[in-house]
Formats: sequence, C-alpha cells, structure tokens
Amino acid sequence: MSNGHIFVGELIGTALLILLGGGVCAAVTLKRSKALNAGWVAITFGWGFAVLVAAYTSSSLSGAHLNPAVTLSIAVKSGDWSHVPVYFAGQILGAMLGAVLVWLTYLGQFQENDEPTLGIFATGPEIRNPVQNLITEIIATVVLCLLILTQGLNKELGLSGMGILITSFTVVGIGLSLGGPTGYAINPVRDLGPRIVHSLLPIPKKGTSDWGYAWIPVVGPAIGGLLAGALFNAAF
Amino acid sequence: MSNGHIFVGELIGTALLILLGGGVCAAVTLKRSKALNAGWVAITFGWGFAVLVAAYTSSSLSGAHLNPAVTLSIAVKSGDWSHVPVYFAGQILGAMLGAVLVWLTYLGQFQENDEPTLGIFATGPEIRNPVQNLITEIIATVVLCLLILTQGLNKELGLSGMGILITSFTVVGIGLSLGGPTGYAINPVRDLGPRIVHSLLPIPKKGTSDWGYAWIPVVGPAIGGLLAGALFNAAF
Amino acid sequence: MSNGHIFVGELIGTALLILLGGGVCAAVTLKRSKALNAGWVAITFGWGFAVLVAAYTSSSLSGAHLNPAVTLSIAVKSGDWSHVPVYFAGQILGAMLGAVLVWLTYLGQFQENDEPTLGIFATGPEIRNPVQNLITEIIATVVLCLLILTQGLNKELGLSGMGILITSFTVVGIGLSLGGPTGYAINPVRDLGPRIVHSLLPIPKKGTSDWGYAWIPVVGPAIGGLLAGALFNAAF
Amino acid sequence: MSNGHIFVGELIGTALLILLGGGVCAAVTLKRSKALNAGWVAITFGWGFAVLVAAYTSSSLSGAHLNPAVTLSIAVKSGDWSHVPVYFAGQILGAMLGAVLVWLTYLGQFQENDEPTLGIFATGPEIRNPVQNLITEIIATVVLCLLILTQGLNKELGLSGMGILITSFTVVGIGLSLGGPTGYAINPVRDLGPRIVHSLLPIPKKGTSDWGYAWIPVVGPAIGGLLAGALFNAAF
Repeated sequence: MSNGHIFVGELIGTALLILLGGGVCAAVTLKRSKALNAGWVAITFGWGFAVLVAAYTSSSLSGAHLNPAVTLSIAVKSGDWSHVPVYFAGQILGAMLGAVLVWLTYLGQFQENDEPTLGIFATGPEIRNPVQNLITEIIATVVLCLLILTQGLNKELGLSGMGILITSFTVVGIGLSLGGPTGYAINPVRDLGPRIVHSLLPIPKKGTSDWGYAWIPVVGPAIGGLLAGALFNAAF
Repeated sequence: MSNGHIFVGELIGTALLILLGGGVCAAVTLKRSKALNAGWVAITFGWGFAVLVAAYTSSSLSGAHLNPAVTLSIAVKSGDWSHVPVYFAGQILGAMLGAVLVWLTYLGQFQENDEPTLGIFATGPEIRNPVQNLITEIIATVVLCLLILTQGLNKELGLSGMGILITSFTVVGIGLSLGGPTGYAINPVRDLGPRIVHSLLPIPKKGTSDWGYAWIPVVGPAIGGLLAGALFNAAF
Repeated sequence: MSNGHIFVGELIGTALLILLGGGVCAAVTLKRSKALNAGWVAITFGWGFAVLVAAYTSSSLSGAHLNPAVTLSIAVKSGDWSHVPVYFAGQILGAMLGAVLVWLTYLGQFQENDEPTLGIFATGPEIRNPVQNLITEIIATVVLCLLILTQGLNKELGLSGMGILITSFTVVGIGLSLGGPTGYAINPVRDLGPRIVHSLLPIPKKGTSDWGYAWIPVVGPAIGGLLAGALFNAAF
Repeated sequence: MSNGHIFVGELIGTALLILLGGGVCAAVTLKRSKALNAGWVAITFGWGFAVLVAAYTSSSLSGAHLNPAVTLSIAVKSGDWSHVPVYFAGQILGAMLGAVLVWLTYLGQFQENDEPTLGIFATGPEIRNPVQNLITEIIATVVLCLLILTQGLNKELGLSGMGILITSFTVVGIGLSLGGPTGYAINPVRDLGPRIVHSLLPIPKKGTSDWGYAWIPVVGPAIGGLLAGALFNAAF
C-alpha cells in the first residue's frame, strides 16, 4: 500500500467511525432526537456497526486500522514501523473530520442545546482515578488488539472479509462488558480528535472539554496496543 | 440482466423492504400491537433486517438496489445509465405495494386507529429546517452508498453474498447513529411511495400526509447517491 | 436423504426450535425468571436464534425444514411431494417434545404459576378477526418461504451454510415487523404442537388452550407456504 | 496440538470469556457504571460476544473449547480422552484469571460496593431446588454441545470459521430462552472459577459465595456434555 492510499483510507475510515460512533451518542443524548434515551444496547451496537461501516469502506485502501492502538499492535507484531506516522496522520485528521460531520448531522439539535455535550465527543470516567481508569482502558484495548492480531491465524478469515464483522461484534462486546467505568475509548484518536473539535465548535452551553482527563484515553489504549503486540509475540 | 428481471426484482424487493420497514413502525406505534413501544433498537433492527430479507430475495433478479439513491451512485460509478429508468419504476411501484401490504397486515389495528399515522408510512423531522434536514439526509445517504460501492473492492464479498448482510447491519447502524434528526429516509421511494399510499388509504383519523416536507427525503438521498458516486470515483 | 434421517432430523430440530422459542416466551412472562419483562426485542431475537440453533443442528440429517409451511413451499417449487408426510410427522412430534422440554426447563416457575400460560405455548391475536388474522399469517409466511426458496439462487449460500444465519435474522425481522397483530406463528406445528401439550400438562391455573383460534395459525401458514411456492415458480 | 498450545490457548481463551462475561454482569449491576440496568438483552449479548472474542482469539492454539462440558462432549464423540486433563487445567485457571481481570477493570466500582456481588461472578437459581436446577442446566448444556458437535457435519463451516459466530449467537439464544431459572452456567468453570475468586477477593460487603449451590453448575453441565456426546453418537 502506498502512503497516499493509507492516508486517504484512514482519513475516510476514521471519519466514518467517528461520524457513526459520535452520532449514536448524539442520537441518544440530544433533546428532540428520535433516539433519545435509547439506552446502552443502542450505544454499544451503534459503535460496533460504526466499526463495521468504516472498516468495510476503507479496508481496500489502508487495511482499515482506524485506531493508533491497532497500528501499534500490528507494528509490534510485524516489526515494520515505516507506515506508522502516515497511519497516525490519517487517523487523527479523520477523527476530527468525523466529529465535525456529527455536528453537521445534528446541527439543529446542537443549536437548541442547553446541557454539557462532551459525552457526545469524548469519553469520561464514572469514578475519576487515573490509575484505575488507565487499567480499564489498557485491559479493554488488549482484548481488542489481541482479537485483531489473531485473526490472521484463522486462514479462512481476512481483515477485509469476515474478520471485520467479527471485529465489529467484538467492539459491541467490549462496550457491553468493559465500557462501564470509562466509556471504552480503546482508541487514542477516537477520544482526542473529537475532544479537539468539541473545544472549537460554536455549540451553546457546550460545557468543559475536560482536558485534565484527555491523556488517559490516549496513553491507556497506546499501552494496550503495545502490550497486545508483545503478548501475541510471546504466546502465539 | 433483462429489463423484465430488473423490474420484477425491484418490484418484489422494494415491496418486501417497505412491508417489513413500514411494518416495524406499525408494530411499535399502533395500539393493540404486541410490539407497542418496543423502542428505537427494535425500529432500527427492523429496518436493517427489512433490507436483509428484501435484498437476499430479489438479488438474483435485479441485483437488489431497492433504492434510487443506490441506483444513482452505481450509475455514476459505472457510467452506465441505461437501466436507471426501469430500476426507478420497479422501486416506486414496489414501495407503494409494500405500503399497502403493511396496511393489510395491520388492518384491524388501523381500523381502530385514532391517532396520526404518517410516521408508519413516511419520515418527518424533529426540528423542521429544510437546509439542516437536507444535510442530515445527504450525509446518511453518502455513508450508505459509499459502503455499497466499496463492497465490490473486497473480492471475497459480493452484493448477493456476505455483502447484503453487511449492508443490512450498516442500515441498522445508520439508523442508530444518524436517524435522530429526520428518521433516516436515505431512499427516495421509501418515503414517497408510502406517503402517496397514506394519502389514499381509508384509515380513520389518519392525519396529514405532510406534502410540504415530501421533497426533502427525495432530493436529499438523491444528492447523497450522486455525491457518493463522485466521491468513490475520486478516492478509490 | 432417507426417511429415517428426515424423521430424526425434523424431530430433533423442531424440538430445539420450540424449546428455545417457547423458552424465551417462558423467560419473559413467568414470575421468578431472570428475564421477566425483557421485552419484544428479547422475544424476537430469542425466536430467531431458536431457528439458528435448531437448523444448524439438524440440517445435515433432514435439510432443516422444521416447518410444514416450508416443506409445502419446497414441494411446490420442486414438484416432489414424496417426503412431505415424513417431514410433517417429525415436525409435529418434535414440536410437542420441545414444548415438554420448555415445561421441564421452567418446572419450578410453572409449579408456582397463577396466571394464564397459553402465550408461552401458542399464539393468539390482539384483535380477534379470522379473516384479518389469516391475512396477517399468510403475508408473514410468504415473506419467510420466499426468502428460503430464493436462497438456492445465490450460489455462494446454501441452506446449511450462510443461508441458515440469514433465515434466522429473517425470522427476527418478521417478528419485529409483522408479529404485532397475531404473534407470528408462520409455522403450523409451532402453534399446534405446543397447544396440544398445553392442554395436557398439569400446570396450576394454566387457563384455556383457546381451541377456537387454533385453526388459524395452521391454515394461514399452510396457505402462505403454498402461495410462496407458486409465486416463486411464477417470478423467479 | 501440543499440550503446551492447548494449555495456553484454553488459559487465554477462558480468561477472555470470563473477563467479558463477568464484565457484562459487573457493568449492569454495579453502581456508577455507565451500563447500570442495561437489562437482559445486554447481558445475553454480552455473554454471546464474550464467546465470540474468546474463541476467535484462542482457536488457533487449542480449538477453543473454553468449557469442560464441551471438552467432555468432544471426548465422547471422538473417543479420545488423552488431552482432557490439560484442557480442564487451562480452563479452570483461565476462568480464575478472567475473574481477577473483571475485578481490576471495575476496581473503583468494587471499592465503593455496598451490595452482594456474587451475581457478577457466579450463577444462582431464582427458585432453589437441586433437581429442577440440575435439569435446567443439563437441558441448556445439551443444546449448546449438540450444536457444537454437529458443526463438523456442515462441511463449509469449521469451528474456527463461521462456526464460532454461530456458537456465539447460540449462547445468546440459550441465555434469552433457557437462562431464566438458573442464569445458564452451561460451563462448570464459568461458575466455579469466578466463585473461588469471589471468595478470595477483598471486596467490601461482597456477601456470601453460596458454596451450597456450587456443585449444581458443575455437575449439571458435565452431565449435559456427556449426554450430548452420547446423543450425537446415537442420532447423527
């Protein structure tokens, strides 16, 4: 894959991921949305199918990492770090673009907003404790990346075939099971990109962008991706 | 494919799409239905599996577009516009047939109706603003059509195989994530066909057919389909 | 397939179908069940996955019809009626066996029962009107059987492969969309077998077995299966 | 497969199974979790996708039994009992490891706990009656193991391919339909491993580990596994 294809693929794919993932958070929390209060099952399937749409659309261009933690775990596994910067660039710009698209899709709802909106863009802990929150994000990210790395071992599955469907259901499962404490960022740009956009957008009464927490959903998933790569190399 | 096969396939397929899609809206909103108030998750999976049933049933005849926006995006991609009119004809007639079948399936419930019923047949905005509503429909339709167009790039998937399952989950995802503002028509005939039928059916106290809004779920998805085709040709 | 394999396959498969399908109805309605009031989404996915489990388990023996309406539609399509009686025999006995297994699984809950229980075993209409109820069952069964008949046209899918997964989601979809008026029997033995068992089991305060309605979920799906076969032969 | 691969595969796989399965129970029951009260649909899909993640991750190492009842049923089918002890060892240690990981993931929530927590770790009956509870667990386990054993008969499906996806949905279905009375252990180590860990962990006000019930979710599934193997050999 050329750097151009990788960049465009990650840009489009991560934009779709955040459009649909942030979209479901907007759908269930903004007043005057048909999905208001649709609940945790809606949120977790919304994010899972966001992965589905984003990865199937972009996989022919870039292999659909869409997540720096995944890129790191694959780099550790393969030993090839040459494309990591271009993956990161496409991912962070795509995540920011996706957050803008969420805002455009729900523009009317945002204009009437009168409550904090950060939860639509970024994650936050139920109990604020850096060590605990890091542990939760690391464990959840290891689960995700280990699943992705071992897909290559199942010959009849490829990342662009059945593997994406399985990864999507895995993301639903991680949300249902491990999302309770921190909202499962499990992806550095999924949190950082939309948080930057949240701080810039003209949303009335949008509330804080909570920069004090912002490093945890970046560092935790990054550690998780590296750990999953090391664990894969040791055990498989 | 012959024009006859295309017409019959789109007629049957779009009728099934609207029967099951309109059906779930009837199921959750009509009094004396076992599914009353089953919620947004039921509605979004109902529409997703409507796509599944309709497309697997009709794909051998017509390739299962079932949506003028999809037909437009494929025409832009391929440059072949010769079958577009017959696709459109089958789709709009199928959508009207499907709406009549919804009415037949829920005939007893409709006869006891005493509330506005347009929401079973057509979409409507939570906040009425033509520009915003158009933007929402355009974005959601681009997501759908781009996913469908890129399926052809994944060699092991075809529109009549795994691709339909993936498209169905994509429609669930679009509903969960992008359906909040306008109810995600993302298909001109899905809205127009049943709206025409709503205006004709003898349902007591059926309420307005809201023709003032009717152009938006036609024009928005049409623009979205064209845009997705152009974006595909530029980026993939 | 030998008649012996067909009989055993349909017996085991239909028993599993009713065990899991009746089971989810017991789960959401009996007091002192962990799933009490889990709702319509639980019921429809429960029945869909009942089809999944039953059909994948029995398909190598009998092809997994598990439903006289499906057997009828396949006989109309193929013109081969020679195995129809043995299919029917395995299906009705399997359905009765499955209903007994539901009772065994929820024995403690049934022993403490103090409300009508027919809804766990058989279907019933929200609005009692024979013609309307027949129409609803016919339409829903045509949707099911047409989907199954056209699977053979998609080369990469077979009834024992992906096709069963798709049929399972189709049953979820039919439940979500068309189940509101009558509870979607769409299968003569699914209703008749458990209804017979309900009339025989020693459940305290079990209530009526409602034999006046019993012919509709037998005749409606049978007509639907025949109609689907004829429609398939005409259109595909 | 070498004993080393089997042990590591079952250890990692069963740890993932319990991390995600116990995780969803923690998510919906612990205060200050984002998924509090997400309901039975969330729990059953959480456990089903726990199977998905665990089995796809570990199948290349050990074939992903992850359940002594499955191991027993396969031994009865194949007649090969030589690897049974190493499977059991990996499974019970993996289940304990998984339970510790649940505790780490929800550490903050557990530290603020003030209610009995056994339901996060182990199963319990709604109506306590050893014979009835055993029957429920036996029936549910036969359904699971029979489905897994017959997968091998569908040529196009393998345990490490589509078969795992189907098994995952089967576990969702068993939960929805048969989980009402006892919480569907259907796996001896799924209950025993976390119960041991529950008795050891320093959780405030954690409540009883209910050792009087502990033998039922071990013996019931074990009988179910053996029975499924015998039934398979007799009928298929």
